[in-house]
Amino acid sequence: MRGSLEIPENLLPLQAALTRGIERVQACFDAHLDSDLPPVARLCRHVERYRGKMLRPSLTLLCGLAADARAADFDAAITNQQVSVAAVCEMVHMATLVHDDVLDESDTRRSGQTVNRLHGNETAVMLGDLLIASAFRLCASIDAPTALAVGRASVELCEGELLQLHHRDSWSIDEPTYFEIINRKTAALIAVACELGAIHAGASPPLASSLAAFGRRLGVAFQIQDDLLDLMGERSMLGKPVHKDLEKGKPTLPVIHHLATASPRDRSRMLDLLDHAAIEMTPDVADRIAVALDSTGSIEHARRRAGTLVSQAVAELDHVADSPARALLRVMADTVVARSR
Amino acid sequence: MRGSLEIPENLLPLQAALTRGIERVQACFDAHLDSDLPPVARLCRHVERYRGKMLRPSLTLLCGLAADARAADFDAAITNQQVSVAAVCEMVHMATLVHDDVLDESDTRRSGQTVNRLHGNETAVMLGDLLIASAFRLCASIDAPTALAVGRASVELCEGELLQLHHRDSWSIDEPTYFEIINRKTAALIAVACELGAIHAGASPPLASSLAAFGRRLGVAFQIQDDLLDLMGERSMLGKPVHKDLEKGKPTLPVIHHLATASPRDRSRMLDLLDHAAIEMTPDVADRIAVALDSTGSIEHARRRAGTLVSQAVAELDHVADSPARALLRVMADTVVARSR
Repeated sequence: MRGSLEIPENLLPLQAALTRGIERVQACFDAHLDSDLPPVARLCRHVERYRGKMLRPSLTLLCGLAADARAADFDAAITNQQVSVAAVCEMVHMATLVHDDVLDESDTRRSGQTVNRLHGNETAVMLGDLLIASAFRLCASIDAPTALAVGRASVELCEGELLQLHHRDSWSIDEPTYFEIINRKTAALIAVACELGAIHAGASPPLASSLAAFGRRLGVAFQIQDDLLDLMGERSMLGKPVHKDLEKGKPTLPVIHHLATASPRDRSRMLDLLDHAAIEMTPDVADRIAVALDSTGSIEHARRRAGTLVSQAVAELDHVADSPARALLRVMADTVVARSR
Repeated sequence: MRGSLEIPENLLPLQAALTRGIERVQACFDAHLDSDLPPVARLCRHVERYRGKMLRPSLTLLCGLAADARAADFDAAITNQQVSVAAVCEMVHMATLVHDDVLDESDTRRSGQTVNRLHGNETAVMLGDLLIASAFRLCASIDAPTALAVGRASVELCEGELLQLHHRDSWSIDEPTYFEIINRKTAALIAVACELGAIHAGASPPLASSLAAFGRRLGVAFQIQDDLLDLMGERSMLGKPVHKDLEKGKPTLPVIHHLATASPRDRSRMLDLLDHAAIEMTPDVADRIAVALDSTGSIEHARRRAGTLVSQAVAELDHVADSPARALLRVMADTVVARSR
């Protein structure tokens, strides 16, 4: 999560090594996504511009370093295999971004134009498929257990997206259903990014499980915060459109909490506002939704849930030996809920 | 390729064993595509209805039997691992069908409604992704080389689709470009279906290569025939819409040959007809295109190319020991160009 961390001074050497590690991940990503067909290679280079926070690769590398606590030379401890695993996780994530843009009919992503906008939905669908296939080809070249873990996480991810689509416009789903959705669509891949980083650093099964559990809880918190930013954020800050969830009928935690706790009158007022938002999201509608959600403490409720999940994630790190990597994972965990983009 | 073969009497016991093998493939497919989430499980059951010729699984099982020529008990020779490999190939193929329907905006597939028609494009994209992820999860559970081979074939498949999209409406691409497209988008997966069937029957590398080459050439022939059926076929025979390629601006072999060989006047007349077809494909336009293609022998040219490729595929079987499975592979190869659906 480059650029959004406040790093204590003693962790700066590790942070610098992590930055160099992420550069290796990017080089690996680009090399494995290349094609001998020039038009395909050009499309692949477009995807490389989508690169964002690199959350998943950072977690893979840091969990590897945390699992190998005696590592003194951080750069040497980041093996090529770990770099490949990190690139695989980012590639699967990138595939979901490309397909999400088709689903969301988005025109911009990370302040650039989307593939579907530039080349049509068909190309965007196929390019997403190419990313998935390239990710699997790369992880099959590592070993079968790694490929199996990535396959399982990818299945979970698709199930989560399908469950979300199934509940589109179902504003009154309960919280367990919301958590089922985001646990699969977001947390599964983040958990496996952490777990595989640990495993490829030689972690024992219990240690790898602790880091997987860390990623799982952090991933759920990350998605709650993502949903909050879509609801409350500003386009200029995020570099992508906001209020997409409401426009696309995706129920998120503050809305679910509000509808479950508001008076019947406020509840039906919110449902009216959501109907409006689905047709056209004006600044006025957005403001009135925000005020209503605040009146029932629903924003605060979502923030608190995210905060609790981060605490639970950090508690998993108690099973990990003290090291600079563990300390930096704690900083990253806190940043997930503190971030504004 | 159930139901479309004329089987010599001495091969009927093998054909019956193949049918039982395909039933095991279907059971494996269904079991691995299930989900603990009821709405997702319901979508998966919809995909199971798409099941068609089962060309790829049939080739996997038959290439396995051909590689293991001493096998007397066909049923016992079809191992669970081969059944899994066959299911993986069909799952990857099915994913491309689901995504093709989104790309083609198709409403019907195998005489039923498509996922995109019933549940929207978003669900169809994600369901295709679930099929890909499930295929990779299943093949990673076999072994790393199998997963790597399927990953490579899937990358080729996506590259072929992207190259085809890149050349959309480019009616005058040359034949090598057309063959580059169909070699990747269709033949790569058919080749790996044959190769992995052989490998999992303990084939030597040269034998596996011969069966891969058999599948590669057969796959190219299969796509030429598929394109011919789209051009000349009737909806009632195929159970799917025809003339899709022309409507979607996909240059196919007869059109490419015609434009390369027709007089300048006939050439510009064809380009006019293709413009018409892209806007609205009427029976009159379809007839005039067919007559024009026939006048330059372009249909015959495509049929001949497919026939030559089938002969080349069959010649690869000379490297395989004589057996009922080899004989049935020859029958299947001939059927690829003789089929009318």
